[in-house]
Amino acid sequence: MIMFQNDYVEGAHPAVLKKLVDTNMEQSVGYGEDPYCEKARARIREAIGREDADVHFLVGGTQTNLTVISAALRPHQGALCAETGHIHVHETGSVEACGHKVLAMPGQEGKITAKQVNKAYESHWTDGAREHMVQPKLVYISHPTELGTLYTKQELMDLRNVCDACGLYLFLDGARLAYGLAADGTDVTLHDLAVLTDAFYIGGTKVGALFGECVVINHPAMKEDFRYLMKQKGGMLAKGRLLGLQFQAMFENDLYMEMGRHADRLAMKLKKGLLEKGYHFYIDSITNQQFVIVEDQKLQELEQQFVFNHEMRYDENHMVIRICTSWATKEENLEKLLAAF
Amino acid sequence: MIMFQNDYVEGAHPAVLKKLVDTNMEQSVGYGEDPYCEKARARIREAIGREDADVHFLVGGTQTNLTVISAALRPHQGALCAETGHIHVHETGSVEACGHKVLAMPGQEGKITAKQVNKAYESHWTDGAREHMVQPKLVYISHPTELGTLYTKQELMDLRNVCDACGLYLFLDGARLAYGLAADGTDVTLHDLAVLTDAFYIGGTKVGALFGECVVINHPAMKEDFRYLMKQKGGMLAKGRLLGLQFQAMFENDLYMEMGRHADRLAMKLKKGLLEKGYHFYIDSITNQQFVIVEDQKLQELEQQFVFNHEMRYDENHMVIRICTSWATKEENLEKLLAAF
Amino acid sequence: MIMFQNDYVEGAHPAVLKKLVDTNMEQSVGYGEDPYCEKARARIREAIGREDADVHFLVGGTQTNLTVISAALRPHQGALCAETGHIHVHETGSVEACGHKVLAMPGQEGKITAKQVNKAYESHWTDGAREHMVQPKLVYISHPTELGTLYTKQELMDLRNVCDACGLYLFLDGARLAYGLAADGTDVTLHDLAVLTDAFYIGGTKVGALFGECVVINHPAMKEDFRYLMKQKGGMLAKGRLLGLQFQAMFENDLYMEMGRHADRLAMKLKKGLLEKGYHFYIDSITNQQFVIVEDQKLQELEQQFVFNHEMRYDENHMVIRICTSWATKEENLEKLLAAF
Amino acid sequence: MIMFQNDYVEGAHPAVLKKLVDTNMEQSVGYGEDPYCEKARARIREAIGREDADVHFLVGGTQTNLTVISAALRPHQGALCAETGHIHVHETGSVEACGHKVLAMPGQEGKITAKQVNKAYESHWTDGAREHMVQPKLVYISHPTELGTLYTKQELMDLRNVCDACGLYLFLDGARLAYGLAADGTDVTLHDLAVLTDAFYIGGTKVGALFGECVVINHPAMKEDFRYLMKQKGGMLAKGRLLGLQFQAMFENDLYMEMGRHADRLAMKLKKGLLEKGYHFYIDSITNQQFVIVEDQKLQELEQQFVFNHEMRYDENHMVIRICTSWATKEENLEKLLAAF
Repeated sequence: MIMFQNDYVEGAHPAVLKKLVDTNMEQSVGYGEDPYCEKARARIREAIGREDADVHFLVGGTQTNLTVISAALRPHQGALCAETGHIHVHETGSVEACGHKVLAMPGQEGKITAKQVNKAYESHWTDGAREHMVQPKLVYISHPTELGTLYTKQELMDLRNVCDACGLYLFLDGARLAYGLAADGTDVTLHDLAVLTDAFYIGGTKVGALFGECVVINHPAMKEDFRYLMKQKGGMLAKGRLLGLQFQAMFENDLYMEMGRHADRLAMKLKKGLLEKGYHFYIDSITNQQFVIVEDQKLQELEQQFVFNHEMRYDENHMVIRICTSWATKEENLEKLLAAF
Repeated sequence: MIMFQNDYVEGAHPAVLKKLVDTNMEQSVGYGEDPYCEKARARIREAIGREDADVHFLVGGTQTNLTVISAALRPHQGALCAETGHIHVHETGSVEACGHKVLAMPGQEGKITAKQVNKAYESHWTDGAREHMVQPKLVYISHPTELGTLYTKQELMDLRNVCDACGLYLFLDGARLAYGLAADGTDVTLHDLAVLTDAFYIGGTKVGALFGECVVINHPAMKEDFRYLMKQKGGMLAKGRLLGLQFQAMFENDLYMEMGRHADRLAMKLKKGLLEKGYHFYIDSITNQQFVIVEDQKLQELEQQFVFNHEMRYDENHMVIRICTSWATKEENLEKLLAAF
Repeated sequence: MIMFQNDYVEGAHPAVLKKLVDTNMEQSVGYGEDPYCEKARARIREAIGREDADVHFLVGGTQTNLTVISAALRPHQGALCAETGHIHVHETGSVEACGHKVLAMPGQEGKITAKQVNKAYESHWTDGAREHMVQPKLVYISHPTELGTLYTKQELMDLRNVCDACGLYLFLDGARLAYGLAADGTDVTLHDLAVLTDAFYIGGTKVGALFGECVVINHPAMKEDFRYLMKQKGGMLAKGRLLGLQFQAMFENDLYMEMGRHADRLAMKLKKGLLEKGYHFYIDSITNQQFVIVEDQKLQELEQQFVFNHEMRYDENHMVIRICTSWATKEENLEKLLAAF
Repeated sequence: MIMFQNDYVEGAHPAVLKKLVDTNMEQSVGYGEDPYCEKARARIREAIGREDADVHFLVGGTQTNLTVISAALRPHQGALCAETGHIHVHETGSVEACGHKVLAMPGQEGKITAKQVNKAYESHWTDGAREHMVQPKLVYISHPTELGTLYTKQELMDLRNVCDACGLYLFLDGARLAYGLAADGTDVTLHDLAVLTDAFYIGGTKVGALFGECVVINHPAMKEDFRYLMKQKGGMLAKGRLLGLQFQAMFENDLYMEMGRHADRLAMKLKKGLLEKGYHFYIDSITNQQFVIVEDQKLQELEQQFVFNHEMRYDENHMVIRICTSWATKEENLEKLLAAF
């Protein structure tokens, strides 16, 4: 079986793994205070163009989201997000377990707009009974979204502006960031994110690391004591250097972007091929996640050889499946897949 | 100004207050273990027809909801409720502050159906990624709902059945219970609630008490150690007898139902009168909350004399207002209101 | 049986109750935004000599403590307190249920010192592994303490100074405040508390109210959005005026202090009497709580007529009991008690 | 510098790392449901001699402790542990952040006794005000303890018996388990732990893994839905196989015990050598952590070459330092250290 159901079925990019192997028997201090983490931090700060950012390494996405949101909010405050947002749907209520309501809003192909945020803010603050409601204080967006779509630079600037006007934090979940930044058609760069968000993270788990997410914090209030929260939430790795080493490798020789480009190129090849064969897509994505509408019998046939994610039933005899490429996808496997369709 | 915006603008029913005054200088043990609470418990058990129920007294509704829900759920479990449910909208995220997600579903005039609950359950348990989602474990309903509507006995039985089939708790918020039980047209009795729910509460704050809600717990798992949770959540009143005394008074001489009947009768009188005058209602309620569509200028005129709750804008020049009657509403004030319309 | 086990066995002071009765059928808006609460707030601000303080009314002590502490702390921060502190011992872990560790320190007769606070602070901030430990951020003291003792003005000034130097909040639990302020021998006034603490509360439940605590917040950071937290934690009373009315009555004609003086005078009479009879005290208290060492057989005899709190076993055949006087204690009952000893 | 300050300064045992490298580009499903985790689970079950145990893999110790404790307790329940217990001292209040109080008791060289547990239980359940206190429900012990000491089999059986008698869960933190099991002088085996505890974990981070802890759950109530909690608390690794692979390697060819024996042998060599040189130990440990009393000037001299953990000041001119050996400690380095002393 060839697996296309997600972008974390393999281990790490060889260059990343090599770093771990090469340094394996070295000794270093723990908890992210080692020289490798320091170097990785320096490299990340350079890559994002912001010397004043705080850079932390955590193990996984759910942990990262809950720690950042905990660091930002007081007990009566909540996080605005799209109804498809990962924190709302697929993290077993981890934000609520930290005491905060996720304030879900209808998304447009996984995205929310500055206008929606403004409306939520206005509607809260003009309500005489607002003290009886959760106060919106943070905007959570994913880029790429859970549906593979991307914000434009203008959309992000609009969100930034509305957050500034309303005193809200803007937090961007970049679990698949490379696949967004490398997409042919995006105008959003890493520098933009560092300027436009209060915090964001650069996903490693889904882009070439064994595991690991790199949080960049720009807002002073969220920076304060962040490491205490990492420890409390179980997100401070004892052998922290493992994270530093991996991010160091990924931000060497343009590797992070290269991995993104590889996955996106194959995704576009798949898309083009399927469109030519007359297939329809549930959503128009230019990143590594492709949502294809497939007739049930055809799907059954394909699933003799390939594994996909079933997203949702499209109609009585069609299913929407998710096909993910990744840094690790072999071109020959993608060609086999195209041929099988 | 005559206030119609809610059902807690006055103090307590004179008979309730009298009980407090008469016993004021008596001495008793605290925390609900006094003879008055005992008597009130006995009376409540009799009224609901269930000797095995646990009966507790708490101060207010939000406190009651969060304590009951905390008692029922493990950390990864959530409460299904209507999008209009009080716990979802108007309790400042108190359930989330206890760690649990509120799983909101579209309501039909404030109500949810057994079918919806079943679908939510099925959709959770058939999802391969369910461990990444909050597990539905409790169904929260209000009766009357926040929109003044009532469940029928059949609807409650259906909810009971689906909860039994799915291993869910059924919890009924009866903040305005008297106004539901006394409504002309309901087929639901207090006995039914005691049979059909795992826990429910009999509202006092909105029905004649100075303050106080009476929780009835039928399910053994929710009974266990409930008083510890009351204390932890700040809901165990030191002079607990104040609650016992009030509920004793309210369940004497049919007072609780009488207060309900009074409010409902006046609400129906208002409804009939307004219908005759050609007014339209946003929702068809047979309880003490009436949602009337009023033209803006007329509203402005009425608000010289009366206070209402603005529920929502209906259209460019109409507002939906809520008019509440209560145990304390004077017939002459209602007549003044009708005349002013 | 005559009850001396605590100071909340009766209802409310007649003047307080009268206020409730007189206004019972008036209409007012809810949630503490009514004219009575406004007046009570004005009166409290006057009494404490601080116009800029925020004044809120809550129902009970546990609720008040958890709400104030929640308002002050971020998730990794904790509250320093004496090992005998109410939040550490007798609130069913309510502070922990809000996510915060109580950092208990040995007390000196229920009190902690500026020196101890400073040491806890220093020991945290000089520890290289401090991010692995809960950060002390708030100092919780009770006045009178759970053992009836009082801080001196100098001790409070020292605590204030150390809190200023260390960036800690100082929160004073005044559940029995009147009995502290009125004690013969204290040099601490209400004005002092308003100057020296970041927040404190004026207890009503144990001093003449049916229920109710009045929180005074001086620190701007703790003021922000406090009412959201009150609502979330279940501490915002619907008929908020009941609290305003009671505190209005208690701060009229010096009633609050008068109630304190009454209880303290009787406590001192008891103390003097028992000392003369050769009894020993477990602790030297000048407030309404007296801790007497009584031989078991004598205790059994006394308990035919009186109820006490058993504090702890003193030795094989002696018990330490707590005897409380209150605003409501009748002189004749105290005399009966003295005679029986 | 040669590091002896803890047992996680290196990466992974070569055999463990090899497993990761060899399988790196294979594809597998995520979240611990892959064949490697399955095999590792089977191997663990065999090693502990219990086919009915649930076996889960988490990333780190704090995460593991908080997840297990969350799975076991209701909101009003707490965890008994020694004052030196890791959850009480060095996890930034992670248990409290999940809502539970840690009920610390004085330890005897890091251990607590069945008698203490029984006393805590009795003292809770015989207290008339117990509902105002946190209910002890789980006993947390470390083995080896934070001071390097070990429970005897008899002590563990006594704890088991008292837990059975009192309805308490017994949870054993085995972050350094290999160093305990392999100690010359212990009579406790892995089989014993599987029989005597309700849950325990087999530490990987400190014993040869890159990272990873293996939780064994024996009690049915704690098993239920444990994976939901892992996900919610951020402890479910996407590429779960990384954990399975490592534990598979560690439980192959007796590697886990072999690593334990290596570290313990070197620790005993160090101990013997230092005793011969006239050094004193703060505590008598037979495991890999040795607590030596060193004169300040000598320490300064040693620290030119070696890194230790400063545990506490012993007296005016002596420090207690911790020296850790591990699976990775080179014999030559230990000899250098001994020579330097």
